Amino acid sequence: MNIEQANAEAVERMMEARPVLVGLGKALDVIPGMHQNLLLHAGPPITWERASGPMRGAITGALIFEGKARNEAEAEALVRSGEIRLEPCHHHQAVGPMAGVICPSMSVYILENKTHGNRTFSNLNEGYGKVLRYGAYSEEVLAKLHWMEEVMAPVLADAIEASGGLDIRALLAEALQMGDEGHNRNKAGSILYTARLAPFIAKVAPNPGVAADVLKFLGDNALSVLNPVMAACKAMADAAHGVEGSTIVTTMARNGTDFGIRVSGLGDRWFTAPVATPKGLYFPGFTAEDASGDIGDSTITETAGIGGFAMAAAPAIVTFVSGTPKDAINTTLEMYEITTAEHKYFTIPALDFRGTPTGIDIRKVVEKGITPRVNTGIAHKDAGVGQIGAGLVRPPMAMFEEALIAFAEQYRI
Amino acid sequence: MNIEQANAEAVERMMEARPVLVGLGKALDVIPGMHQNLLLHAGPPITWERASGPMRGAITGALIFEGKARNEAEAEALVRSGEIRLEPCHHHQAVGPMAGVICPSMSVYILENKTHGNRTFSNLNEGYGKVLRYGAYSEEVLAKLHWMEEVMAPVLADAIEASGGLDIRALLAEALQMGDEGHNRNKAGSILYTARLAPFIAKVAPNPGVAADVLKFLGDNALSVLNPVMAACKAMADAAHGVEGSTIVTTMARNGTDFGIRVSGLGDRWFTAPVATPKGLYFPGFTAEDASGDIGDSTITETAGIGGFAMAAAPAIVTFVSGTPKDAINTTLEMYEITTAEHKYFTIPALDFRGTPTGIDIRKVVEKGITPRVNTGIAHKDAGVGQIGAGLVRPPMAMFEEALIAFAEQYRI
Repeated sequence: MNIEQANAEAVERMMEARPVLVGLGKALDVIPGMHQNLLLHAGPPITWERASGPMRGAITGALIFEGKARNEAEAEALVRSGEIRLEPCHHHQAVGPMAGVICPSMSVYILENKTHGNRTFSNLNEGYGKVLRYGAYSEEVLAKLHWMEEVMAPVLADAIEASGGLDIRALLAEALQMGDEGHNRNKAGSILYTARLAPFIAKVAPNPGVAADVLKFLGDNALSVLNPVMAACKAMADAAHGVEGSTIVTTMARNGTDFGIRVSGLGDRWFTAPVATPKGLYFPGFTAEDASGDIGDSTITETAGIGGFAMAAAPAIVTFVSGTPKDAINTTLEMYEITTAEHKYFTIPALDFRGTPTGIDIRKVVEKGITPRVNTGIAHKDAGVGQIGAGLVRPPMAMFEEALIAFAEQYRI
Repeated sequence: MNIEQANAEAVERMMEARPVLVGLGKALDVIPGMHQNLLLHAGPPITWERASGPMRGAITGALIFEGKARNEAEAEALVRSGEIRLEPCHHHQAVGPMAGVICPSMSVYILENKTHGNRTFSNLNEGYGKVLRYGAYSEEVLAKLHWMEEVMAPVLADAIEASGGLDIRALLAEALQMGDEGHNRNKAGSILYTARLAPFIAKVAPNPGVAADVLKFLGDNALSVLNPVMAACKAMADAAHGVEGSTIVTTMARNGTDFGIRVSGLGDRWFTAPVATPKGLYFPGFTAEDASGDIGDSTITETAGIGGFAMAAAPAIVTFVSGTPKDAINTTLEMYEITTAEHKYFTIPALDFRGTPTGIDIRKVVEKGITPRVNTGIAHKDAGVGQIGAGLVRPPMAMFEEALIAFAEQYRI
């Protein structure tokens, strides 16, 4: 067995995947295996008992949104009884930022990888402030979710259809030339996304007032495009998954309690370890004491060669996640140590248009003692509060070591 | 007389100027001194006899647009006879890119400097391809100008009014964190501009089809915001003009034949010298042989501390104007040698958020033998052709020497 060859094939598939945003539909209708009593969540599998504060908050909010619970106690009872099931987004070709909770009646973006044909999904981004994905579920949070679902989603669905689809790989490549790294800085990508859809939104909206409201919501939210970007990265990572003999990481995800990875040549098995707490900058009034453990599927961006791995493209991000522009450059440079390829389509102007470090090799992580670099939002540890900062974090080394041992066993090396 | 103090005052006024896009109106109605038989143009004063090919082409196109001529011969006769007058945009608080021709019935952006109260103007950007500002005047060019004037301008005027005004200094500061330098790379600024106006455009357009067309025109044109940006820089430079004893440059502009500068402490006198030809990258089928001399008022961007001076913020621009990302950094670093201040509001993430080099001092230019760095589009030398490339150019040293001698004479140094 030739591991190098297997990895080259996996990373080639990852880079050649071309995910296009082709539509928007109800999770229940479009996500494979979704059903009325299922909630999807970020990271590896989790139970209510072990779930973090923000995860419990988001589950509660989703069940209120579905009309199945009125408060956290009712939500807890439904989940503990098994009447409501919890499964990872990643088991359903989906990803969600932070708590990543997707419920049956939420609309989700539909991405199609035009090269290999696989589909992926992600929910709509709620913007900043009090939001479900950070575990908040006040009336204000629910009211916004209802507006997004009842007013914005139909317009977005028609606009995406009228546009004929948006090539998210091309949009990301452009955004990396405009100071984004695609994970915590999606400012350029989000306005590119808004500007591209704007003519179609104006055309399909039921009236000019709704068109204006939707355009303002998308244009004011510097994370509008994060969810389609995450689904695009998931489509790329999935395309690289299942290559016999490959040591390339195809999933990195956190549920607030455990970090989990999956590896191309090791099937659907999760390797997990307790999450760390991110280090970063806190909003006024909050400190590291208030922080939840690392949470969210958004590390799918680093898995696909952007996010923390592309920070050299986004020096201005340090005002948000801490550090200096030089640290941002160094973060990218370090990631070349543990990856297999330089991305063909995602390039960094400041590094003479060098491709981003792509395709994490668990062998290199363990041999060099270098874990991936991830940048992330920071949630409050209690349910119902929300975002309190942003920063940097590394996944635990133990998962990579465990995966490498499993690889040696499976392939009898 | 304290020159340092005078320069500090001039550059402080330049940086504290806060130009806001407040409206759109017909040149005839809003530009001071505009009249039915007047055309404004880029650069210092010029006659038909000495005008370059692209300048003649743009004058011809403008007179066809006004219904005053049917071809170049008729346009030439009108201008030579004195029936149609030519005057610099700069004499009327206005600026225009490339040939910079503004005729009475064209709509122009109105900028107001909220700090010092002065107003400035610029025309609408036509996008790429065959366009008047590069000297093209085919039917296609005229048809687009008529659509812009009759369909887009009324919508833009209402949208800008409904928005309550757009702070262009703030928009530029944001765009410099997103890979723009504000002269030849305005990709981020243009979509920020489109996204900010989009909700208002959707609301005020006569119907959804027109809203969609206007949004598409603005969103597809990576130079949409160039003209408001130029007018904003003109407002900043004008605020710095007229400070007794100041050696700060407040105008740099080219008409395709002559480069001209004006200096804060030297009144309205132009110092001119023959333009150079830019060095850069040519579109397929064209070479340096085909290039017109340097042309346009867009060097108002460098005058105000952005454009070529901010290239370190925009490493991706080298794919358009030639060179490497390192050259872009070095261009900015060199400009600190001939300027007075580091901009308070325009900062460069890659240089640890250092302010852009701002306020060109003619003393430093002459003493150090370093002329300003300018990046620019390149026009074909013949009327009627259009853009053939983009590159870099330096203004002639002779103007700065002449201005310094005049300064010594005027102030008896």
